Amino acid sequence: MGKEDGFRTQKRVSTASSAAAGVLPTTMASGGVRRPPPRGRQIQKTFNNVKMTILCGFVTILVLRGTIGINFGTSDADVVNQNIIEETNRLLAEIRSDSDPTDSNEPPDSDLDLNMTYTLGPKITNWDQKRKLWLTQNPDFPSFINGKAKVLLLTGSPPKPCDNPIGDHYLLKSVKNKIDYCRIHGIEIVYNMAHLDKELAGYWAKLPMIRRLMLSHPEIEWIWWMDSDALFTDMVFEIPLSRYDYHNLVIHGYPDLLFDQKSWIALNTGSFLFRNCQWSLDLLDAWAPMGPKGPIREEAGKILTANLKGRPAFEADDQSALIYLLLSQKETWMEKVFVENQYYLHGFWEGLVDKYEEMMEKYHPGLGDERWPFITHFVGCKPCGSYADYAVERCLKSMERAFNFADNQVLKLYGFGHRGLLSPKIKRIRNETTFPLKFVDRFDIRRTTPLKIEARS
Amino acid sequence: MGKEDGFRTQKRVSTASSAAAGVLPTTMASGGVRRPPPRGRQIQKTFNNVKMTILCGFVTILVLRGTIGINFGTSDADVVNQNIIEETNRLLAEIRSDSDPTDSNEPPDSDLDLNMTYTLGPKITNWDQKRKLWLTQNPDFPSFINGKAKVLLLTGSPPKPCDNPIGDHYLLKSVKNKIDYCRIHGIEIVYNMAHLDKELAGYWAKLPMIRRLMLSHPEIEWIWWMDSDALFTDMVFEIPLSRYDYHNLVIHGYPDLLFDQKSWIALNTGSFLFRNCQWSLDLLDAWAPMGPKGPIREEAGKILTANLKGRPAFEADDQSALIYLLLSQKETWMEKVFVENQYYLHGFWEGLVDKYEEMMEKYHPGLGDERWPFITHFVGCKPCGSYADYAVERCLKSMERAFNFADNQVLKLYGFGHRGLLSPKIKRIRNETTFPLKFVDRFDIRRTTPLKIEARS
Repeated sequence: MGKEDGFRTQKRVSTASSAAAGVLPTTMASGGVRRPPPRGRQIQKTFNNVKMTILCGFVTILVLRGTIGINFGTSDADVVNQNIIEETNRLLAEIRSDSDPTDSNEPPDSDLDLNMTYTLGPKITNWDQKRKLWLTQNPDFPSFINGKAKVLLLTGSPPKPCDNPIGDHYLLKSVKNKIDYCRIHGIEIVYNMAHLDKELAGYWAKLPMIRRLMLSHPEIEWIWWMDSDALFTDMVFEIPLSRYDYHNLVIHGYPDLLFDQKSWIALNTGSFLFRNCQWSLDLLDAWAPMGPKGPIREEAGKILTANLKGRPAFEADDQSALIYLLLSQKETWMEKVFVENQYYLHGFWEGLVDKYEEMMEKYHPGLGDERWPFITHFVGCKPCGSYADYAVERCLKSMERAFNFADNQVLKLYGFGHRGLLSPKIKRIRNETTFPLKFVDRFDIRRTTPLKIEARS
Repeated sequence: MGKEDGFRTQKRVSTASSAAAGVLPTTMASGGVRRPPPRGRQIQKTFNNVKMTILCGFVTILVLRGTIGINFGTSDADVVNQNIIEETNRLLAEIRSDSDPTDSNEPPDSDLDLNMTYTLGPKITNWDQKRKLWLTQNPDFPSFINGKAKVLLLTGSPPKPCDNPIGDHYLLKSVKNKIDYCRIHGIEIVYNMAHLDKELAGYWAKLPMIRRLMLSHPEIEWIWWMDSDALFTDMVFEIPLSRYDYHNLVIHGYPDLLFDQKSWIALNTGSFLFRNCQWSLDLLDAWAPMGPKGPIREEAGKILTANLKGRPAFEADDQSALIYLLLSQKETWMEKVFVENQYYLHGFWEGLVDKYEEMMEKYHPGLGDERWPFITHFVGCKPCGSYADYAVERCLKSMERAFNFADNQVLKLYGFGHRGLLSPKIKRIRNETTFPLKFVDRFDIRRTTPLKIEARS
């Protein structure tokens, strides 16, 4: 595969994209001008892609031949397999080479005035009234059904394949886990794989999407963001929404860590709920300005590190920014923020994953707390990326255990369970019967009364 | 990583699994005895795993160093990255080495009497009455809501990571595509990643799962099976269920191909619907016997090849078996089978994917047929496996196009669209507004009246 092939491939992809897209947008919605990357860097990039393609192809040949120097004859099947792997590697390289909103090679938009506050969109000021009117006019789209508020779960992942090949597999298992929980509890899911705003990519991408969903789904009462690395581990537990009748943001955290220690991990934005209302739109608007990538996010990161306890030095992340916002504008916001820790709306995985067997022995689903965690959140594992904070093996095996721990609760209705928390294989947990409906009455979670949270001291 | 490491790893995984699982089942539900694999083959298998691990590690080193012989010094980041990739490869090899129900190295169960008909479970004979009674007793779980039958979409994929790294990424996109359609149309999803019956693995795995779901979800009126390589490409179109008031199986196909030509592709089991009733349970029971892997499936394959036009020689697949069953027991079954081709309940991808731009220019969603296909089905692409029937590049790019073609219809409500059918990136298709609800009224698909199918000559 020579250099020319690489160029032809690049050209073919670009042509196809251009042909498909028509003309690329030349202006951004805000009125800024889009600049193409410098030519010299384009050529360098193409050369790098070609080099990587050649290397991947060479390496593939080595692997398929077993050991270097032995057996250079190939069977037809070997040739086919080799071709497939080469093709895939080449396509992967092409896909990854497509410039990314988070690509740090792109120059930050220096037209963006550091003094100008970034906004998620035009200011909306009367959302509560508008929404209420719309609901009245559209009785077929109520926001409460049988006394239960309509909830939409928002989650997602980047549009491109993961850097780590196992990452997409765990994203798949994670979304299956969410599909199961939401089917049982009548919650809608939106799985976002698009960057609505290239300024707010990465962990900030949830903000424009939450706003967009609120405004596009007036029938939804609560938007629930959940990270892709968070898994449901209590399939029975339901969020006690009536607990939050007077609140608009529900987030897991600890008040003393927040107000006394000003810790950067006082709250966790891996799983939180926003009521669909004006207050939430306002909070999102106040939250977003630290997000735009480049100098703004860098500078904001320094402010956050300086002000929040334990925070390492890195660009502004959404969690630190929210904590800082709520601390510095406490009187404005905190009245409507419920800092929840009676159950694991977010449960940090390290202290939980080794106890699943003990939990299965002593307790039962529906508790949602440390006895049977509602959500196990694999903070720092980053299966989709290349650089995790924890050992890969520990992370992947723990995620497998959490997934199977949850899956057992789903499979129970069907009479099956995993052979072990590390095993993808299942076994029957009861015999087949000619009276299947008695098990439906006993084991269908939808027919179980949710447990109430007991007041804790 | 020496041989000893590989052995230790194998041992550690096995110990962990055993500890987690307790005692492995020693009997199968049917009363047969489980035999462990021969010791010699176990050692050989372990040795092969170790060899592959060493090779993967070596190859990884080569790739990371760029070219052989240059720059053997490494930075800390290189070392960390290298470790992560090595770990992942090792874990992947471990996961894949775990014996698979479809593992052809396992001897077929010779206890299974070739004359004894395989069954999916104990015979259920009065499901219609039982189900009707249950529905009467459980008015909170109706099978029709506002005149609309409750539908459950069943799909899935094998429990292990794909052989081809890109495969899991496309499975993820495929399930997102299904989540979108089902959210818009109020359909429940079950994503199956378990083999309920190790005899019926592979494409046969859907049969026991369909049966299990019927019996466990009496409130569901229709179970809709859809392959993981089939994508929704018309987000507006709805299956006209009232068309099938007198039928129990709806499947895409062509009567002349079926009855006149007895073609093995006369029907397509990539997307079909079963009514939740006794008739369906009976059909599943009649369908299953060709499925058990090993000699039964092999022999059945020969019968199917001999009797169905154009069928290549391979083991019995579910589609050929169903066609054969319906042909040979026509009077028993066909009265309740609706062979549908007025819209693309299954749309073979090759003739469709190049026309999406033309469709966008001339037509609109909601038609479901060749003008705007309901479902585009990537038969033969097999992104999860190693051996596809079509060129990898053609397949992956076509799937990307189909995905984005569908995603555009979902994003329209939010004011976005893909830059091109090959691009994961999106752009605004209308300006932001302070009156978002007018777009909700115009663009929310749920508020669009489904088009009726016009009678065709």
